[in-house]
Amino acid sequence: MNPVIELLKNHRSIRKFKDIPLTPEQIDAIVTSAQAASTSSNVQAYTIIAATDPELRKQLAELTGTAYVEQTGLFLIFCADLYRIKEATEQHGEVFHQNMESFLVATVDAALAAQNAAIAAESMGLGICYIGAVRNQPQEISKLLQLPELVYPVFGLTIGVPDQAPIQRPRLPKEALVHLNGYQVEAGREGVRQYDETVHEYYKVRTQGKTLTNWSQSMADKYRKPVRAHMRSFLDARGFRLE
Amino acid sequence: MNPVIELLKNHRSIRKFKDIPLTPEQIDAIVTSAQAASTSSNVQAYTIIAATDPELRKQLAELTGTAYVEQTGLFLIFCADLYRIKEATEQHGEVFHQNMESFLVATVDAALAAQNAAIAAESMGLGICYIGAVRNQPQEISKLLQLPELVYPVFGLTIGVPDQAPIQRPRLPKEALVHLNGYQVEAGREGVRQYDETVHEYYKVRTQGKTLTNWSQSMADKYRKPVRAHMRSFLDARGFRLE
Repeated sequence: MNPVIELLKNHRSIRKFKDIPLTPEQIDAIVTSAQAASTSSNVQAYTIIAATDPELRKQLAELTGTAYVEQTGLFLIFCADLYRIKEATEQHGEVFHQNMESFLVATVDAALAAQNAAIAAESMGLGICYIGAVRNQPQEISKLLQLPELVYPVFGLTIGVPDQAPIQRPRLPKEALVHLNGYQVEAGREGVRQYDETVHEYYKVRTQGKTLTNWSQSMADKYRKPVRAHMRSFLDARGFRLE
Repeated sequence: MNPVIELLKNHRSIRKFKDIPLTPEQIDAIVTSAQAASTSSNVQAYTIIAATDPELRKQLAELTGTAYVEQTGLFLIFCADLYRIKEATEQHGEVFHQNMESFLVATVDAALAAQNAAIAAESMGLGICYIGAVRNQPQEISKLLQLPELVYPVFGLTIGVPDQAPIQRPRLPKEALVHLNGYQVEAGREGVRQYDETVHEYYKVRTQGKTLTNWSQSMADKYRKPVRAHMRSFLDARGFRLE
């Protein structure tokens, strides 16, 4: 196993950071790495907003309900961006056609770039955490970041010097997540059964017996009610045509 | 600049592979790295299908119109997967609520895992290429891979021993892609203007003057008509409720 794979396998999200800003060299390495990620047909349909202004960071921490958005060394917001492509298309006198496919492409482009940024950061000893909570109040955040139409915040990424060393949370067993030559429903179920036991034990140890849940139970707790039910109307309002 | 950032910055897509299968150790390192990526609230809403069967690979090459899907050392299809979570939720007697948000989460989870797989592969000297063309005929591919409801192929990933050493395609300048504390429309436009010149020169050199295009022109060529207009109805048919 080489050091890169060692690094990838060693990932854990960091939610407590030292109050140390990133150096310009660190930021440059992170951003350049993000840019080098694969992108569908070179569309590069994403924009990264780097939030460095203290007042902005404070407002973002409030809007995401996540205090460490303010306390981390750097907070990046990865946005899916069709605005740039729309302008480019119209610049040549053509009508821009968007649909579910272009929305997907932009969202995936943002995610690939972000994961490169995350790995670059971790390779320098920094810690990261994805902040899906930018989608809690996405309209307010879009306004705050002055996003034009056809741009939406997919997630944030906190990056900073770790001030904690959490243990790694176990993942679903390989048998559940990776299937050979076709989807294996029964192998998936068996993997979840095993994983439920693993997760039960993990929480028992981590909380000294106070939390006794498992993975399927925590999924049931999460999805028995709608989560962020505003996302579709928010995206419609941003100008995305999800047809 | 450390070796990991060097690796990330050095990425280029590989579209020609030597006829060498991956070793079990290589596959294991790639998959384990994928699994270690961040996932929204630990939902792990994706499944990887590893296509190793020669007949299946042949059919996938035909359905994607991409010959090297058959010729590469390994072909992985990254699927967004809400089926596993739906089953987990129902197992506890609850009704599964899905919407645009859960669709996004699953799609992003698949992308983050895939980018870790890509980097793990590249760290071992292998080459990769994302295959968005699995969305050309997604219904046929879903059937071929026996995907249950609420699972869809986001993209494929070819991985193998490179049989080419392409030069790196230039990216949009940082000023266009990364904005400080808020979206900068004018900086974005200026970045595209510069980039158009860079790309024009790149194609001129690479094609000995035969291809004279630039980035905005190639975006106009692509988006002046609908691309993969079937995606929304395909996703509806897979059971996704994009509300």
